[in-house]
Amino acid sequence: MKSNLLEHIHTPADLRQLDEAQLPQLAQELRAFIIDIVSVKEGHLGASLGVIELTIALHYVFNTPEDALIWDVGHQAYGHKILTGRRENFHTNRQLNGISGFPKRSESIYDAFGVGHSSTSISAALGMAIASNLNGDFEKQHIAVIGDASIASGMAFEGLNHAGVTNANLLVILNDNAIGIDPSVGALKNYLTAVKEGKNPRQNNMIKSLNFNYSGPIDGNDIFAVTKELKRLQKIKGPKFLHVITTKGKGLHQAEQDQVKYHAPGKFDALTGEIIPKFEENLPPKYQDVFGLTILDLAQKNKKIIGITPAMPSGSSLKFMMDALPERAFDVGIAEQHAVTLAAGMATQGMIVYCNIYSTFLQRAYDQVIHDVALQNLPVVFCLDRAGLVGEDGATHHGVFDIAYLRCIPNLIIYAPINEIALQNILYTAQSGLEHPIAIRYPRGRGVIQDWKKEHFGHYQKIETGKASCIKNGSKVAVLSSGTIGNNVITALDEIENPEHIAHYDFAFVKPLDEKLLHEIFQNFKFIITVEDGTVIGGFGSGILEFAAQNNYQSTIKTVGIPDEFIGQGTVNQLQQYCEISVETLKSLFLSY
Amino acid sequence: MKSNLLEHIHTPADLRQLDEAQLPQLAQELRAFIIDIVSVKEGHLGASLGVIELTIALHYVFNTPEDALIWDVGHQAYGHKILTGRRENFHTNRQLNGISGFPKRSESIYDAFGVGHSSTSISAALGMAIASNLNGDFEKQHIAVIGDASIASGMAFEGLNHAGVTNANLLVILNDNAIGIDPSVGALKNYLTAVKEGKNPRQNNMIKSLNFNYSGPIDGNDIFAVTKELKRLQKIKGPKFLHVITTKGKGLHQAEQDQVKYHAPGKFDALTGEIIPKFEENLPPKYQDVFGLTILDLAQKNKKIIGITPAMPSGSSLKFMMDALPERAFDVGIAEQHAVTLAAGMATQGMIVYCNIYSTFLQRAYDQVIHDVALQNLPVVFCLDRAGLVGEDGATHHGVFDIAYLRCIPNLIIYAPINEIALQNILYTAQSGLEHPIAIRYPRGRGVIQDWKKEHFGHYQKIETGKASCIKNGSKVAVLSSGTIGNNVITALDEIENPEHIAHYDFAFVKPLDEKLLHEIFQNFKFIITVEDGTVIGGFGSGILEFAAQNNYQSTIKTVGIPDEFIGQGTVNQLQQYCEISVETLKSLFLSY
Repeated sequence: MKSNLLEHIHTPADLRQLDEAQLPQLAQELRAFIIDIVSVKEGHLGASLGVIELTIALHYVFNTPEDALIWDVGHQAYGHKILTGRRENFHTNRQLNGISGFPKRSESIYDAFGVGHSSTSISAALGMAIASNLNGDFEKQHIAVIGDASIASGMAFEGLNHAGVTNANLLVILNDNAIGIDPSVGALKNYLTAVKEGKNPRQNNMIKSLNFNYSGPIDGNDIFAVTKELKRLQKIKGPKFLHVITTKGKGLHQAEQDQVKYHAPGKFDALTGEIIPKFEENLPPKYQDVFGLTILDLAQKNKKIIGITPAMPSGSSLKFMMDALPERAFDVGIAEQHAVTLAAGMATQGMIVYCNIYSTFLQRAYDQVIHDVALQNLPVVFCLDRAGLVGEDGATHHGVFDIAYLRCIPNLIIYAPINEIALQNILYTAQSGLEHPIAIRYPRGRGVIQDWKKEHFGHYQKIETGKASCIKNGSKVAVLSSGTIGNNVITALDEIENPEHIAHYDFAFVKPLDEKLLHEIFQNFKFIITVEDGTVIGGFGSGILEFAAQNNYQSTIKTVGIPDEFIGQGTVNQLQQYCEISVETLKSLFLSY
Repeated sequence: MKSNLLEHIHTPADLRQLDEAQLPQLAQELRAFIIDIVSVKEGHLGASLGVIELTIALHYVFNTPEDALIWDVGHQAYGHKILTGRRENFHTNRQLNGISGFPKRSESIYDAFGVGHSSTSISAALGMAIASNLNGDFEKQHIAVIGDASIASGMAFEGLNHAGVTNANLLVILNDNAIGIDPSVGALKNYLTAVKEGKNPRQNNMIKSLNFNYSGPIDGNDIFAVTKELKRLQKIKGPKFLHVITTKGKGLHQAEQDQVKYHAPGKFDALTGEIIPKFEENLPPKYQDVFGLTILDLAQKNKKIIGITPAMPSGSSLKFMMDALPERAFDVGIAEQHAVTLAAGMATQGMIVYCNIYSTFLQRAYDQVIHDVALQNLPVVFCLDRAGLVGEDGATHHGVFDIAYLRCIPNLIIYAPINEIALQNILYTAQSGLEHPIAIRYPRGRGVIQDWKKEHFGHYQKIETGKASCIKNGSKVAVLSSGTIGNNVITALDEIENPEHIAHYDFAFVKPLDEKLLHEIFQNFKFIITVEDGTVIGGFGSGILEFAAQNNYQSTIKTVGIPDEFIGQGTVNQLQQYCEISVETLKSLFLSY
């Protein structure tokens, strides 16, 4: 095979110069290019491999960027990026100052709408399509490509429900591969499977019921079938829906076989597909595994415990419990709103529900936390994984707003463990009669205790609500940290030569604050520094400011945390450096006192 | 008619003693009772009148409270309240210390789940039903009664999608009256109408597609038809769906005829149904009308302006624009998530979108504000009606969290006008090239300028972003208020005898803060008081604390606002008194300096 088609494609206009018969070769080249780069640079593999043909066909048939193309979530958009001028930068994917792992408006005119969170594409495309009509452009097409996991989220339904009563030039393409990050769930998924298997005699009635011009299902990995159907749909006005069937990981045997693992496999051998094992011996555990192992252990002993995840069994490690105790562990799909109120309903019946949601995705269920849980003071246990800076996923995924948006909610306890032991202990404490809901926030990645599992796992201690603790004494400056960022403070103080004047306190409870200890601190220290990995606006530090103001303390308080801007992508350390909460920057700060 | 059945029903057990043939008489009595009380005491009328037969039938057939009954939203639950021990207190409905206008767990064991916001009932009932199975109770039924407007919200779809793959004893009853507060919209509504009219040959395929045991549609105002069907469904395990057709306002001619007006008609003549006009001459305008009239005026001059409301055309007064410029004003139904991202999509095409959402309901679209609007810095104009304390709707509906949850979002401007003129001017300013999204928050109820419409409407002035202003000079204490609560400060200062030492500043911009003016204030005043009608935690006052800390100012700062608890129902004045932001309480506070 000559590998020379792809390198001549700088924009989709170049692609549209090709003869249709050349497209299969291009697909092969594009697939090989993605495999080559992602095998070394890491990233999201499976989703993009599955839509290679669809991606080429869309840019071949439609007049992008005049026609607007929106990729829901965006994990599947690598081929799109490569065909739209970012082939040569693709190796910088997800790196600091590199291209984003998701479509991003500021990066390219071909990225019609920035994505990252699920199920926004239909609403956004419909908004554009209505605007085009109002602007007198009745030819422009607006295309949302959405997976079968994402279309089951409520927001997608809202978009479809509105679109069906408009005359907007909207084309919704359902990329049905029966899997999100983990396998899709729910009644709609079963229904779609029946449609695919020809078991539903009237095709997709559900979509037709919403007044869409429905076509499909067609084989989305057959490029001629896809271009043919897109050409037909291109001429049809109004809301249209195309159901395509694709195979996630298409073209790489292992990726087709183990679609969960190859969603984002890390480094692998581009030829054989074998994942290259990371050297992980003697590393501390991932926080998600501390959660996953602990909840399983607790649930085995306490029959009232229930686990819920909205579509993140692997990412949250709830899968351990799902495997062992399937009747009490639920993957509800990409449905954060439902997840939270479902938990509330269960809690009314005396169940102890651990609802595990990534911090950034709890934003989707904010009202349910307030209105269904906190207002009724139901003791639901929110486990917010991926709190703080998440690294390479970037601006759409950082969990930096949670402290600010949760702190104003009455009745809610907020706890940020400093390490694995604190996390397991608060998970233990949460099932022993808490009278309030609690949000436990912990970060992506690994902890700090190498032998946690061997030495500490299962040795639970109950934590007293609202209790902070002194990690290190000092004479002049008190550093108050909340959560695992406290380990940066510990290391920074360790690396300072004469740190006698600096005390360090762990305020794991952001709410309620340990007011007794705070009185002591304010009476003894002229300088207070708060450190957190959430927004400085409204965060833990602001809570300390509020305490000081209420009590008329006059100490000088400096609040350190995420500044008032959206933080981009990079390694967590690079981003901590940028936000001045890295070990190095904290050291400099401490030395200035 | 003997009116003696109702007064002997203290609990549903009493109801279940009746002969089925007596139920129509009870329905008549219950209807008359509601009309009598609501005609004098005000409240939500139409929804409850429509479900009288359904309410009686549910408590007659099912074994409440052992069987769990959840009313979605809860506007329709007056009959339920009256039949479950609250007949004699019903006249205290929505008053301070009276019974709540919504079902509320702490009020009655018959209120299985607290409601107020839409579309939570399916998730909550499903959670209870799953818990019942785990608790070994396979007989208990869990019933969600949800309207056709509420079922079109994404969260309801998420609940249905999950329920369909469970064996939970869940009965979803669709109370289809084709109207929410305003007439229902969307493709699903059209579909349901077709089902009702027998135009869909296979009944409700959409629900069947989600694996529910579907029955209906039946006449929900025919009590024998309803009891018969409920008795049949009672014996069926697993997820069931009953489609009932009712008439909102049933039994009161005017309420059936004008369903929007009689949703919550205020006082009316119980015999004739005629609404008793309020004496409203020479009152200042409602803030919602300032919005509604101004956006219409602006939109008539600027073709790029679009208005969006999620199901509140009347409540937001967007109806003025919907009537005059229907092609640019959209009611998207109860779909706040969709509304916000739709607005974002339109904004990418250069449209100036005013997305009007009640403050409390924006909690439903928090992620979309962050992820789809602010992150992309799209200049969407959020108009947050019902910000602050809303009065009789109580804890579920106060708009008191918005400042705290919005303040942490980068790129977002937050503005709280002090009066009608400021509101119209910021609406004008928002369409003249703002480079950021903006949230404009204003309260329920009337303004303070009697002749606003005659004297000021249309005389627009552009507002400089981030500019605060001095309302009154002073020597010792500076009061910084944000929003219409500033009028309480003005009145309080007016009523104080020697207020020379107290200055008053209007910080309409919560973000960005007027730092120049703040430096002046902090340099000149030893005492600062912030006043707002949002949560003191994380609110405007915290922003001032953050500013002071950043700049090492040592003034004594007192932050006044909503305390850290859920505030109940009452008149706005009563609740302001409770929160110590009323004129009286502010006066006392000021006098203490």
